Amino acid sequence: MNETPPGVVDLLGVLAYAELTAFLRLAEDAALLAPSLTDRAALGDVAAAEYGHFRLLRDRLASLGVDSEEAMAPFVDAIDAWHEQTKPSDWYEALVKAYVGTGIAGDFYREAARHADPSVTELVEEVLADEVRSAFTVDRVRAAIEQDPRLSGRLALWARRMVGEALSQGQRLAAARPDLAVLLVEPGSEDLAEIGRLFARLTEAHGKRMSALGLTPGP
Amino acid sequence: MNETPPGVVDLLGVLAYAELTAFLRLAEDAALLAPSLTDRAALGDVAAAEYGHFRLLRDRLASLGVDSEEAMAPFVDAIDAWHEQTKPSDWYEALVKAYVGTGIAGDFYREAARHADPSVTELVEEVLADEVRSAFTVDRVRAAIEQDPRLSGRLALWARRMVGEALSQGQRLAAARPDLAVLLVEPGSEDLAEIGRLFARLTEAHGKRMSALGLTPGP
Repeated sequence: MNETPPGVVDLLGVLAYAELTAFLRLAEDAALLAPSLTDRAALGDVAAAEYGHFRLLRDRLASLGVDSEEAMAPFVDAIDAWHEQTKPSDWYEALVKAYVGTGIAGDFYREAARHADPSVTELVEEVLADEVRSAFTVDRVRAAIEQDPRLSGRLALWARRMVGEALSQGQRLAAARPDLAVLLVEPGSEDLAEIGRLFARLTEAHGKRMSALGLTPGP
Repeated sequence: MNETPPGVVDLLGVLAYAELTAFLRLAEDAALLAPSLTDRAALGDVAAAEYGHFRLLRDRLASLGVDSEEAMAPFVDAIDAWHEQTKPSDWYEALVKAYVGTGIAGDFYREAARHADPSVTELVEEVLADEVRSAFTVDRVRAAIEQDPRLSGRLALWARRMVGEALSQGQRLAAARPDLAVLLVEPGSEDLAEIGRLFARLTEAHGKRMSALGLTPGP
């Protein structure tokens, strides 16, 4: 018998698949796009950290008596599609993806986890702690923009494309998995106002990341 | 001032680059070739372990006052070439590569480490311990061959190709890096006899791995 709410299984499942995929895609970006062995190793560091997160989530699913393959399966198409639409074409796009793309996805998971039970909230917070990712990518991107200010426009566009694709896949998922969608909304609140506040929080966090990179968030 | 013998810096450098590359290539194989999410995660496990090894080696190089990028640089072409020549075309080739290919490379490093100082020998042994890799790949390949015995001939050929390519890159490296090559030969021994024994040990270890997979080591 499994007493875990289906929304929580969905949350852990989508996050597990997101982390497994981030690990593999970042490793691929590191192998294909890093301009030096030091950079390759540094993005490899980020990739390996994502793998550690995947393991935490897989272990939690197992301890809840849930098969992680089954829990991840509903989210494979949406997450794979997002990565297909956001394949970085150079090193700086890869860095911005590692920071901004993973960041906005993380905000969604964090929002969903707020309404789960405390042990799930804690696990999700642990998985999403992103100090490794931040310091390295922010330094590299800022330095590159200082050297070549034209880079800033291209990378800002790239970041907006990633956010657009994330929203599009997010809506697709929310429609397909109502139990997960419901986690995003405070119980008992007015749905529309709450969704408005949710988007305000997500937009604010995204804006902070863009500023950290030295990029303009705006349209 | 750096007192580390150049052969030891070469050994740690080639092994570091081999582990970093194995990590990234295995992650790529897991993303592209795994038939299920469980298999993808399992090969991801192996990949992440290789990354852990890379970190150990990088840290050791740093503690010796050696820049790891500089230590790895002389070996990039040979190791990249080996991976280009041994790109698996399906899941079982990927598994055999993870086990047999990484195994024979590991034997070379272990042989070289035997003549280094004990702290280096220990580190190399730790890095090369391959329990994770073994259990998972051996089980999967054996089960597949039981189901489809024709697979065995194809995979045996594939394994021989990987060994051939490894020997060819190994000779190239030995010619280019005499300090590393010298580590493979017992000091004071008759070179030719010692090289004969070295090859006998490598061949024996390779044969054991092939048998473990249920494959014929062949001519």
